[in-house]
Amino acid sequence: MEIDLQLNAAHVIPVIPENQVLSNTSIIIKAGRILDILPVNEANAKYTARKTHELDHHILMPGLVNAHTHAAMNLFRGYADDMPLMNWLQDHIWPAEQKWVTSDFVHDGALLACAEMLRGGTTCFADMYFFPESTARAAEQSGIRATIGLISIDFPSAYAQNAQDYLQKGLQVHDQLRGNPLIKTMFAPHGPYTVSDEPLQQIATLAEELDLPIHIHLHETNDEIEQSLKQYKLRPLERLQKLGLLTPRLMAVHMTHLEPDEIPLCAEAGVNIIHCPESNLKLASGFCPTSSLAEAGLNIAIGTDSAASNNDLDMFGELRTAALLTKGSAQNASSGQAAEILKMATINGAKALGLDDHIGSIEVDKSADLIAIEIDNIESLPLYNPISHAVYSANRQQVSDVWVAGKQIINEHSLLTLDINELSQTARHWQKKISS
Amino acid sequence: MEIDLQLNAAHVIPVIPENQVLSNTSIIIKAGRILDILPVNEANAKYTARKTHELDHHILMPGLVNAHTHAAMNLFRGYADDMPLMNWLQDHIWPAEQKWVTSDFVHDGALLACAEMLRGGTTCFADMYFFPESTARAAEQSGIRATIGLISIDFPSAYAQNAQDYLQKGLQVHDQLRGNPLIKTMFAPHGPYTVSDEPLQQIATLAEELDLPIHIHLHETNDEIEQSLKQYKLRPLERLQKLGLLTPRLMAVHMTHLEPDEIPLCAEAGVNIIHCPESNLKLASGFCPTSSLAEAGLNIAIGTDSAASNNDLDMFGELRTAALLTKGSAQNASSGQAAEILKMATINGAKALGLDDHIGSIEVDKSADLIAIEIDNIESLPLYNPISHAVYSANRQQVSDVWVAGKQIINEHSLLTLDINELSQTARHWQKKISS
Repeated sequence: MEIDLQLNAAHVIPVIPENQVLSNTSIIIKAGRILDILPVNEANAKYTARKTHELDHHILMPGLVNAHTHAAMNLFRGYADDMPLMNWLQDHIWPAEQKWVTSDFVHDGALLACAEMLRGGTTCFADMYFFPESTARAAEQSGIRATIGLISIDFPSAYAQNAQDYLQKGLQVHDQLRGNPLIKTMFAPHGPYTVSDEPLQQIATLAEELDLPIHIHLHETNDEIEQSLKQYKLRPLERLQKLGLLTPRLMAVHMTHLEPDEIPLCAEAGVNIIHCPESNLKLASGFCPTSSLAEAGLNIAIGTDSAASNNDLDMFGELRTAALLTKGSAQNASSGQAAEILKMATINGAKALGLDDHIGSIEVDKSADLIAIEIDNIESLPLYNPISHAVYSANRQQVSDVWVAGKQIINEHSLLTLDINELSQTARHWQKKISS
Repeated sequence: MEIDLQLNAAHVIPVIPENQVLSNTSIIIKAGRILDILPVNEANAKYTARKTHELDHHILMPGLVNAHTHAAMNLFRGYADDMPLMNWLQDHIWPAEQKWVTSDFVHDGALLACAEMLRGGTTCFADMYFFPESTARAAEQSGIRATIGLISIDFPSAYAQNAQDYLQKGLQVHDQLRGNPLIKTMFAPHGPYTVSDEPLQQIATLAEELDLPIHIHLHETNDEIEQSLKQYKLRPLERLQKLGLLTPRLMAVHMTHLEPDEIPLCAEAGVNIIHCPESNLKLASGFCPTSSLAEAGLNIAIGTDSAASNNDLDMFGELRTAALLTKGSAQNASSGQAAEILKMATINGAKALGLDDHIGSIEVDKSADLIAIEIDNIESLPLYNPISHAVYSANRQQVSDVWVAGKQIINEHSLLTLDINELSQTARHWQKKISS
């Protein structure tokens, strides 16, 4: 049988079934989808491939899903460090955004971010930022898969005037992207402290009608909770419940301040937790109780947050930190097992985005969103367990090849869809402007 | 004036003075030492260099000091993960060590570790393991600087029979290495739960006579403290104080279980704290109170611990985790400032080893232990603050060039002192043996 692409890999981590490694295995790809998974010698007998790619010293695994970022903020990488969230936002990031953020800024920053993510093995990301159509355009140019947040916030920006304007513009973006095979949308109300009841209720209704996820920063700081108690006499989670937002559509980002009874509340509602360990540490926001949340059966995915609070979009770094921090904060070295953490960075992210039928694991009929990581460097030797290496030793520079929906985006470390020199020039252009 | 080497760098982070970045600066090297630091145009007028190295898109900084590792354990990388310290040691690591650790094992593992450290920008490490002469030999072959621990432990091993045998063998190693320009020694009693009073007292006396540091795992787990209370009616720190070990010679590794009154006790004694954030997280040992220790004026250095509990010897990863974890555990995003963390990974490590007159910063008369990191990749753009990038964005794959005492060890990513293919073969040989 004739097929498009045959990948022959030394080690395959399919993610589903969990904790499994397949040796000398072929992944057979036709029309962008995984047609078959079988031993290389059987594949050679059964299929005639238009193209074969040998991955002799590699681990082949599903592309990583970055479940929370603000891609355009790559242009603010390292702009302000070493200060708490509210000070960082109010005295540095918000003024800089007011001064610089335009449609062009967002496109250029997002393009840089897409290139960084693809080079590091991320094949899908969930974004929240102004001018979402510019982020969508950048994602499309790069070839990455994305779910673009339709941002809502009460205060005016260069992008929109007020809550209704944000919503209307968001719905326009949603309409424009309808039918796009790789770019989807979600509602993205910024946070409980920046979005009032009316737009939140509208979003709850619209999300149901349009069948979209709702992505929100939630329970990130004590300030946020105290402000909510003062203004609404409710903790943010209670308020969202009252407004009808606590459903399996909800992607609750951060969740570093949870009372014990809020964990079963979220579990019963089927809320998705988006854990951003490095941003939470860097901004000293608190510890997301990942171990307890996992025990309660919640779906936990991983995000980098933006390059301004991280300061990279490195999902390999992030999943490693997630594994280490889960153990450390639970005071239990057996929690945050490597295989469980790999799920968070792949299939769980897909599930949070409603895409788990299509991506997040290497299974027959799923889209061929795949990455290969080289493991013949001395930093990867000896090799006793490829899953351990993928989580605890590998880093993004080992990502050699990336496919999205069967299309090769990175070939032997070389990005095929964008001109790296041009990207660097654009980044330097903004650096000069913003520094001056 | 004729000199050996002139390095012209776009950005220099000297570490001392703190929080400073010099642009377009030359480092002038003669006979392995830093002779001058001055603007490139002035350097060109003043010196005639036998060799010039252009670092146009680089940060030049002092080589990193890995203040705690067990280099040979690189051969156990990923051998056993996701379990608590005592279980990990007693059921996996100690039996494997009993079975495999020989002089050859230690040499081969340490050589692999030295290569990994050098490629990642570490130019000096402090080690604790069996067969220290084999680690010393590997370090010498690789060209790295090292302080080799003369291990003491009560129980027998392939290396030594009993406490006295360990000490005697250690002293022999010390004698053999006397006068070695790069390789120094220190006493390395394994821990309070594995070394009894008599050898600890002997070590206190010998360290004074020979002017050597004392390197010990300390207050790493609750188990250790409870066992000490049971056996000695003292917490380990109290016991070491009684035995005369709480002095500026002491390198106290881990320190994840400290009572509030133990911090001033250590500060008054001038103890050095060796912080291993990733190992502490991975083994869920607890959180070293780095922020409080720093406030109390203690010297804090950073170590990776071994590749079996980390699972890499990546000091860039480690210092980033140290910065993030300091903020997270202190609940203060302003603690663990980037410049302070860079000191921990350089000059503070040098100080703990008694080498701060020679290494740890770019200052005139110090040894030319230097590293260059490339910052022209899109993951390093834009660039507002090189110190922020060195801590929060850079990673070890960006290390392009390394010099130890003025001798180039890595040139444009290529290791000049060892054969990488041979190293890989050796690692695979042990992998096969240990897996079988």
